[in-house]
Amino acid sequence: MKLQSIAERLACRLEGDGSVDIQRVAGIERAEAGDLTFVANRKYLAQLATTRASAVILAAAMREEARPPAGCAALYADDPYSAFAGAVGLFVQDSAPARGVDPLSSVASDVALGADVSVGPFVVIGAGASIGARTVVYPNVVIGRGARIGEDCVLHSHVAVRERVAVGNRVVLQNGAVLGSDGFGFAKQPDGSHLKIPQHADVVIEDDVEIGANTTIDRPAVGETRISAGAKIDNLVQIAHGVTIGRRVLLASQVGLAGSTVVEDDVVMAGQVGVGGHLRVGKGVVAAGKSGITKSVEPGEFVTGYPAIPNREWRKASVIFRRLPSLKKRIEELEQRVAELTRRLAECSPPTDQ
Amino acid sequence: MKLQSIAERLACRLEGDGSVDIQRVAGIERAEAGDLTFVANRKYLAQLATTRASAVILAAAMREEARPPAGCAALYADDPYSAFAGAVGLFVQDSAPARGVDPLSSVASDVALGADVSVGPFVVIGAGASIGARTVVYPNVVIGRGARIGEDCVLHSHVAVRERVAVGNRVVLQNGAVLGSDGFGFAKQPDGSHLKIPQHADVVIEDDVEIGANTTIDRPAVGETRISAGAKIDNLVQIAHGVTIGRRVLLASQVGLAGSTVVEDDVVMAGQVGVGGHLRVGKGVVAAGKSGITKSVEPGEFVTGYPAIPNREWRKASVIFRRLPSLKKRIEELEQRVAELTRRLAECSPPTDQ
Amino acid sequence: MKLQSIAERLACRLEGDGSVDIQRVAGIERAEAGDLTFVANRKYLAQLATTRASAVILAAAMREEARPPAGCAALYADDPYSAFAGAVGLFVQDSAPARGVDPLSSVASDVALGADVSVGPFVVIGAGASIGARTVVYPNVVIGRGARIGEDCVLHSHVAVRERVAVGNRVVLQNGAVLGSDGFGFAKQPDGSHLKIPQHADVVIEDDVEIGANTTIDRPAVGETRISAGAKIDNLVQIAHGVTIGRRVLLASQVGLAGSTVVEDDVVMAGQVGVGGHLRVGKGVVAAGKSGITKSVEPGEFVTGYPAIPNREWRKASVIFRRLPSLKKRIEELEQRVAELTRRLAECSPPTDQ
Repeated sequence: MKLQSIAERLACRLEGDGSVDIQRVAGIERAEAGDLTFVANRKYLAQLATTRASAVILAAAMREEARPPAGCAALYADDPYSAFAGAVGLFVQDSAPARGVDPLSSVASDVALGADVSVGPFVVIGAGASIGARTVVYPNVVIGRGARIGEDCVLHSHVAVRERVAVGNRVVLQNGAVLGSDGFGFAKQPDGSHLKIPQHADVVIEDDVEIGANTTIDRPAVGETRISAGAKIDNLVQIAHGVTIGRRVLLASQVGLAGSTVVEDDVVMAGQVGVGGHLRVGKGVVAAGKSGITKSVEPGEFVTGYPAIPNREWRKASVIFRRLPSLKKRIEELEQRVAELTRRLAECSPPTDQ
Repeated sequence: MKLQSIAERLACRLEGDGSVDIQRVAGIERAEAGDLTFVANRKYLAQLATTRASAVILAAAMREEARPPAGCAALYADDPYSAFAGAVGLFVQDSAPARGVDPLSSVASDVALGADVSVGPFVVIGAGASIGARTVVYPNVVIGRGARIGEDCVLHSHVAVRERVAVGNRVVLQNGAVLGSDGFGFAKQPDGSHLKIPQHADVVIEDDVEIGANTTIDRPAVGETRISAGAKIDNLVQIAHGVTIGRRVLLASQVGLAGSTVVEDDVVMAGQVGVGGHLRVGKGVVAAGKSGITKSVEPGEFVTGYPAIPNREWRKASVIFRRLPSLKKRIEELEQRVAELTRRLAECSPPTDQ
Repeated sequence: MKLQSIAERLACRLEGDGSVDIQRVAGIERAEAGDLTFVANRKYLAQLATTRASAVILAAAMREEARPPAGCAALYADDPYSAFAGAVGLFVQDSAPARGVDPLSSVASDVALGADVSVGPFVVIGAGASIGARTVVYPNVVIGRGARIGEDCVLHSHVAVRERVAVGNRVVLQNGAVLGSDGFGFAKQPDGSHLKIPQHADVVIEDDVEIGANTTIDRPAVGETRISAGAKIDNLVQIAHGVTIGRRVLLASQVGLAGSTVVEDDVVMAGQVGVGGHLRVGKGVVAAGKSGITKSVEPGEFVTGYPAIPNREWRKASVIFRRLPSLKKRIEELEQRVAELTRRLAECSPPTDQ
C-alpha cells in the first residue's frame, strides 16, 4: 500500500516520499525497510534516529523534536497511538469463515439470521436465538436457546453464549469465553450439604464490549449480570452472578469480581485484582495489580494492596515492610538504652518514695 | 403459576391471596407486581415495607417483625433461602438438547447410554465410555475413551472429560470445564530440560459435585485426583494432580491448589486463594480471599493473608501495616529523645568509673 | 509386563526376581502386589520397609541405605525420578483418535497434512494451514487459516490455534488452551472510549513446549509473542501480547504476565505469580507462589511477596509482620518509659538555662 494512500486514510500529514510501498506495520525496534512504525511515547523517541523503517507515525505536537532519519518519511497525527491502531487495521488479513451458514453447523429452524452473517462449521444456535447483520461466528461456538446477538459482532471459536443471554452490537468475544454460566449460589442445609439455587436470570452485554479468552461471566438466580457499553475485559477474568460493570471499564487479565458487586464507569483494574461481593467500586477508581478490594471504594481513588488502601499509603508502608527487621532491631536497642538510662538515673538520683 | 400452588410445592404457610398469578421470582430491590420475592437476611427487612412484589418468602421465625405491605402476600418458611431456591426452580425454562442422541454427534458404537439421555450436536463420546440415565450432554462436549458419567448429570457445552475419568451421579459441569488434563509433572534432566512424566492415572468426581466454567482438574501420573461428594467448585479454579477435595468443600473462583494437597471436608476457600503442594487443610478450615496457604492448617482455623495466618492475627497486623510510616516516625522520635536523655544524664550525673 | 523387560527398557540394574509380572506403576503409599513403585526423594525412604509393591525404583547412590523388603525387587537407576517417568510411559493406554482424518471434520482442501496424522471429529483446519507428521488433533480443535503445526504434536480437545500461529515440533497443548487470541490493546479516545488496536501479529511456539488447559496466549499488534523451546506452562496461565518466554522456563498454574515482558531462560514461577508489563525477569530467577513482580529482576534471584523482594528479606519481614501488634506495644511502652525518664530527669537535675 502506498504511503500516500495510508496518510490519506489515517488523515495524517505526510512529510517525505508518499510513493514508497508499505508492506507491514512494525514496532520501532524491529522495523525494517518497507515497514511503517510509530512513536506514541516520548521515551521511545531516542530510537527514532536509528530506525530502518520506511515511515513513522509521530505526534504533530512533537514535530520540532521528532525528526526521522533520512529516507524515513513521517506521518504526523494528533494522536499517533490511534493512528497506529488505524494503520494496523489497514493490513489485517481476514480470517473469518465465509459468509453464510456452514452446512456443518446446527442452526435451529427458527433462528433469526441478519444479513451477511458468517456461521462456521460445528456451530450450534439454539431455538429462538437471533444473530444480527454482519456478525461473524467462528467454528465450534455454541449459542443457547433464545440468546440474542447484535450486529457486527465477532464470536471466536469455542465461545459459549448460554440460553437467553443478550449481546449488543459490535461486541467481540475471544475464544473460549463463557457468557451465562450458572452463578455459584447454594443454600446451606441443616446436614451441611449445599442446595443449588437455580441460576436462570439474565446476562446483558451492551454495545462495544470486548470479552477476553476463557473469561467467565455468570448469570444470577434473579436480577441480572450486566456489562455496560464500551467495557473491555481481558482473558481469564471471573465476573460473578449479579455483578454490574460500568461503561468503559477496563479489567485486565485474571481479575475476579465476587457476586453482586457494582463497578462504576471508567474504573481500571490491573491484573489479578480481586473484589469481594456486594461492594461498590466508585467511578474512575484505579486498582493496581493483585489488589484485594475488601470494602467499597470512593470514586476517583487509586488503591493497592491487600486489603486495598490508597496507593500513596501503600507505597510508604511497603517500603517500611521490607525494613521491618531493622526497625525491630532499633526497638530492641531502644529498650536496652532505656533500661540503661533507667539504671543510671536510679544511681544518679537519690531514692524517692517509690 | 398461582401463589397457592407455589406455597404447596414449597411447603410454606401462605398468608394472603393465594389466587394471585406469579410470573417470576425477583430480588426485593427489583420486584414488581406479579413477582415473588424473598427476605432471607435480616438486613434486607427494611426494604420489605416498600416492595412492589405480589408475594414474599419470609422466615417463619421473623413473622412478628416481618410484615409485608398491603397487597403483598407472605409465604412463611423455616428456611426462606432454601424456599427461594425452590421457587426459582419452579420457573426454570428448559434449555437442554432434546432427548436422544443428536445425529450430528460422534458416539462410539460400544458406548453404554442410559435411559432418556440427551446428547447434543457435535458431541464426541469415545469407545468404552458410559453415560447414565437422564444425563444431559450439551453441544460440543468431548468425552474420552472409557470415561464413566453417572445418572442425572448435566455437562454444559465445551466440557472435556478426558479418557477414563469417572464422574458420579447428579454432577453439574459448567461450560469449558476440563476434567483429567495432564498434571504438570516433569523430571529435570542434567542438561536443564524437563522430561515429561506421563500423567495417566485417575480422576474421580463423586456424586453431587458441581464444577465451574473453565475450571481445570488435572490427573496424576500415579494414584488419583478426587473431588468428594457434595463439593462445589466455582469458575477458573485449578486443581492440580493428586489433590483430594473433601466432602461439601466450597472453592470460590480462581482458587488454585498445587499437587498432592489434601483439603478435608467442609473447608471453604474464598476467591483467588492459593495452596501449596503436599499440604493438608484441616476439616472446616475457612480461608479468606487471596490467602496464600504455605503450610498445613489445623481443622477449624480461619486463615487470611500471605503467608496465611489466623485471621484474628492478620487483621490486627494489617491495621498496623498501614500505620508503619507513623510507627517508624515514633521510633525515630524515641531515638532522638533517648539520645537527648543520655546527653542530659551525662551532664547531670558525675562521671563514673566507666 | 515382566520386571526383567522393564529393567532393560529403563536401563536399570535389577536386584530380585525379574520374572514377576508388573501390572501398574503406583505411588509408594498405595502400591500393592503387582505394582512397580519408586523412591526418588530421601524423605520417602522410611516407607520403603513396609511397601507391598512387587518392585521399587531406587537411586543407585542410595543403594546402601535403601533396602526393599523381602519379596520386593529393586531397580537401581542413576535418576530414579526419570526412570519412574519412563516406567509410567510403558503403561500408557492410547486415547488418541484413529489415524487419518475423521470424516466429521472440516479440513480446508489446501491444508498440508503430514504422514500419519490423526484428526478427530468436529475439528476445523483453515485454509493454508499445515499439520506435521504424526501430530494428533483431538476432537473439536479449531486451527485457523495459515497456522502451522509441527511434527509429533498433541492438541487436546477444544484447543484453539488462531490464524497464522506457528507451533513447533513435539508440542503438547492441553484442552481448551488458546493460542493467538487478540492482545488487550486499546487507544484511549478523547471521549473516554477505547479504540481497539487490531492485534494481528505473530505467536510462535517453539519445539518441546507444553501449554496447560485453558491457558491463554495473546498475539500482539506488531512484533510477536514467543514461547521458546522446552518451556512448560501450566493451566489457566495468561501470557499477554508481545511477551517472550525463554527456554526451559516453568510457569505454574494461574501465573499472569503483562504485555511485552521478557522472561529469560530457566526461570521458574510458582502458582499465581503476576508480572507487570515491559519488565525483564533475568535468567534462572525463581519466584515463589503469589509473588507480584513490579520491576525487572536480576538473573539468579529468588523473589517473593508483593512487591516481590529477595526471598530472604521477605521471610524475615513476614515473620515480623505477624508480630506488628507486639512491636507497636513495645513502642508504646518505650514512649511511656521515656516520658517517665524525662520527668524524673527533670526532677533530678537542676534546671538549666533552656
